[in-house]
Amino acid sequence: MRKAIFAVILGLATVTTAQAFAADEPGNVIKYRQAVMKAIGGHTGAIAGVVKGEVSFAGDVAAHARAIQEMSQLVAHLFPKGTDNESQAKNRALPAIWAEPAKFDAAVKAFQAASANLVKVAQAGDPSAFGGGLQQLGKSCGGCHKPFRAEKK
Amino acid sequence: MRKAIFAVILGLATVTTAQAFAADEPGNVIKYRQAVMKAIGGHTGAIAGVVKGEVSFAGDVAAHARAIQEMSQLVAHLFPKGTDNESQAKNRALPAIWAEPAKFDAAVKAFQAASANLVKVAQAGDPSAFGGGLQQLGKSCGGCHKPFRAEKK
Repeated sequence: MRKAIFAVILGLATVTTAQAFAADEPGNVIKYRQAVMKAIGGHTGAIAGVVKGEVSFAGDVAAHARAIQEMSQLVAHLFPKGTDNESQAKNRALPAIWAEPAKFDAAVKAFQAASANLVKVAQAGDPSAFGGGLQQLGKSCGGCHKPFRAEKK
Repeated sequence: MRKAIFAVILGLATVTTAQAFAADEPGNVIKYRQAVMKAIGGHTGAIAGVVKGEVSFAGDVAAHARAIQEMSQLVAHLFPKGTDNESQAKNRALPAIWAEPAKFDAAVKAFQAASANLVKVAQAGDPSAFGGGLQQLGKSCGGCHKPFRAEKK
């Protein structure tokens, strides 16, 4: 994966002139969406390491929280129609996302609220409060991933 | 991986009282470091999708750039002694990091400078400049990954 990113970056000069890809084709949006989710997963895992006491980097938590909060603002446009797991491969987004838009929207808003709260908690700087903030965030992740994401095959 | 994160979050209540892990043990720092790198990789891959024209989300780039820039400030404390690939498993950090500290430090600083520049470029808002900013960033990633990271086995 990391290797692929390097190849991408090194090939940019060519690609930017050739425009080999059509913007916002479902497969491209899914690839982008998965990169965003990978970033969120990295930050969340890092915060969990602090909260579990595995590492002492409590001072890093606010930076991770800010990144997650910024990503939470992007989620709404990461799920255009046609990017579900029935019409597209390598993708676990269930059609329920589009069948139950109000429920999906509420779940996205809960994620945004939980990540904004985690920023507040992290920036306040009391490590004993980080666990509670992270648990609320984790619950909001599940608010989408449980009803709207297919199990891994 | 994502499943593992959920399990971690759900188990926090137990772990925060039990403190099952010793802070900053090499294996724990490596796990944390890899979470940070995963986040950076996600953001970088997302920006690459925009620059390649795969997705039209040019407005997202500044958020990704800010996250990478914040992560670049953490890198210096992610490599304590004893977290090299000879003394620790599942880890590609070469002993050269500690054998050539000035060179490593310069590479970290180049990453910090490139990510700060990418924030500036992204926030200026001209998408035609994003590719140049990303290429400089990619070069700075290679500045560490080429001399200081083992090839994947």
